[in-house]
Amino acid sequence: MAVRIAVLGERSPAGDAPGDELFDAVRRGGGEIVAADKADGIVWVDPSDPGGLERAMKTSPARWVQLPFAGIEPFVSAGVIDEDHSWTCAKGIYGESCAEHALAFMLVAWHRMHEHIGATRWQPEHSSSTERRFHGQATVAIVGTGGIGGSLASMLEPFDAYVIGVNRSGRSLAGAQRTVVVAELSEVISDVDFVVLAAATTPETERLLDEAMLSRMKSDAWLINVARGALVDTDALVDALRRRVIGGAALDVTAPEPLPEGHPLWELDNCIITPHIANTWVMGLPALCGLVERNVAHFAAGEPLEATVDPELGY
Amino acid sequence: MAVRIAVLGERSPAGDAPGDELFDAVRRGGGEIVAADKADGIVWVDPSDPGGLERAMKTSPARWVQLPFAGIEPFVSAGVIDEDHSWTCAKGIYGESCAEHALAFMLVAWHRMHEHIGATRWQPEHSSSTERRFHGQATVAIVGTGGIGGSLASMLEPFDAYVIGVNRSGRSLAGAQRTVVVAELSEVISDVDFVVLAAATTPETERLLDEAMLSRMKSDAWLINVARGALVDTDALVDALRRRVIGGAALDVTAPEPLPEGHPLWELDNCIITPHIANTWVMGLPALCGLVERNVAHFAAGEPLEATVDPELGY
Repeated sequence: MAVRIAVLGERSPAGDAPGDELFDAVRRGGGEIVAADKADGIVWVDPSDPGGLERAMKTSPARWVQLPFAGIEPFVSAGVIDEDHSWTCAKGIYGESCAEHALAFMLVAWHRMHEHIGATRWQPEHSSSTERRFHGQATVAIVGTGGIGGSLASMLEPFDAYVIGVNRSGRSLAGAQRTVVVAELSEVISDVDFVVLAAATTPETERLLDEAMLSRMKSDAWLINVARGALVDTDALVDALRRRVIGGAALDVTAPEPLPEGHPLWELDNCIITPHIANTWVMGLPALCGLVERNVAHFAAGEPLEATVDPELGY
Repeated sequence: MAVRIAVLGERSPAGDAPGDELFDAVRRGGGEIVAADKADGIVWVDPSDPGGLERAMKTSPARWVQLPFAGIEPFVSAGVIDEDHSWTCAKGIYGESCAEHALAFMLVAWHRMHEHIGATRWQPEHSSSTERRFHGQATVAIVGTGGIGGSLASMLEPFDAYVIGVNRSGRSLAGAQRTVVVAELSEVISDVDFVVLAAATTPETERLLDEAMLSRMKSDAWLINVARGALVDTDALVDALRRRVIGGAALDVTAPEPLPEGHPLWELDNCIITPHIANTWVMGLPALCGLVERNVAHFAAGEPLEATVDPELGY
């Protein structure tokens, strides 16, 4: 008998109801699409509605829940992640997309593209031009060495960059010249040109980039955030950018998010903001469908699932 | 006796007179700095003043001239490049810088960063969002397989891109899945997501991207130009962008250049323009100094010079 799976959630992040792609992925994995009250497993598509999931779970005999994103804080803080179910998320599979967003931010920053995109006249180089070649000259600290960090390290190899991995365990990041634990970030941060945030939000990483940490960065260094806004103390960042304590910031995520109109970050010429699009629903859907197909097949066969959530770590 | 070298030119592209860096490079190579009328060799710093070079050469017994840039068309078309001197340019040494500019353009285009940089409000993803993941999904034709093309091919390797090299000889581009001659571009162009122009301007490549060639591109493909504006028929490009014949264009070089205020390219939302800054004077000076040092040493020792100009090919 096929394993029975409910694909649930009012809206995907693109504003749509769950699409055929996920139903097809479940079927390719050997699953049958059913309603919640008949389901052995739930594939949940809405990353911002833990209450909806909690209600669905009360009506369902499901023993496994697949979440659609890597960052699952809303579900952790709502207390939905329990011990009675197996939990999987989408950690790891969106790494390339966020890593390439981070690399683009770094290249844009050093080639000063943000000063020209949207301009309507030619502003040629001049004697105080500050464009920099990235190749062979950049030192990059990558905070978080999961899917994003690992992809980014490999993308940096042809650029002959000096890469410092920063993580909880100190376990070596492949492609990095050096890996340190989070507590050592305050030491290495004084030597780097870029701090790339690619970590989950945990009590250890929340507001890791606060006033003290920002003040230790080089005055021309850039902060890149493609992970979670909560990793940064936004008020301290605004102050550091205004006073040119650091060179700039490129943010795909913010706290608060969405960043409200009129927020001071919008007006700073050394701050680049994209609206959480490093990995959109559409960009990531093929990878999510692949994961769902594999996990449905694993679940049906009683095999270990991929991308399991550790409730204690919160990711 | 030390070889005698004149470092000449009114203004570098950054607007300055030749700086100490080049004098030091000459001395490190074993040269002595002299005036033109005493020089065995000339290091010329102004890429836009062939007349000034011609006047200097008339007063000088120099047998070798080092030009500061890879693209030397103004000197070729002014007839300055003669048979009586050895000519070297700076081809090859600026490759990484222009290649990383091209890669940044591609990532910006597919992540739609240009729609957000400079915005002052959050425009989140929606059901018609067109962001695309670059990793594992891009097919790239690189026209010109010299310093820029070779660097770009290596930078694309971690992205698992399908790369097609396009050159005069058909000789394989390292890192490319396929290499074709220029005459075959019109065939392969229909299958690619990006056409990257990284070639010198020659009779064969001038206006290579004309109306007919642009019309063969996919409707969501992007044209990337980090080489020379003359490779593109600008009027045809404006028309192709307006009618959405192609997805977009990202240009670091234009024809005419500088692009005048009010030119239609400035107003197109599917056109990204940077003002010839992929490799500015300041970005490239360390590499140029290295080349000058080596060539002065080669010249003093009677050894073959690097980056020699072929007067017939024009580069």
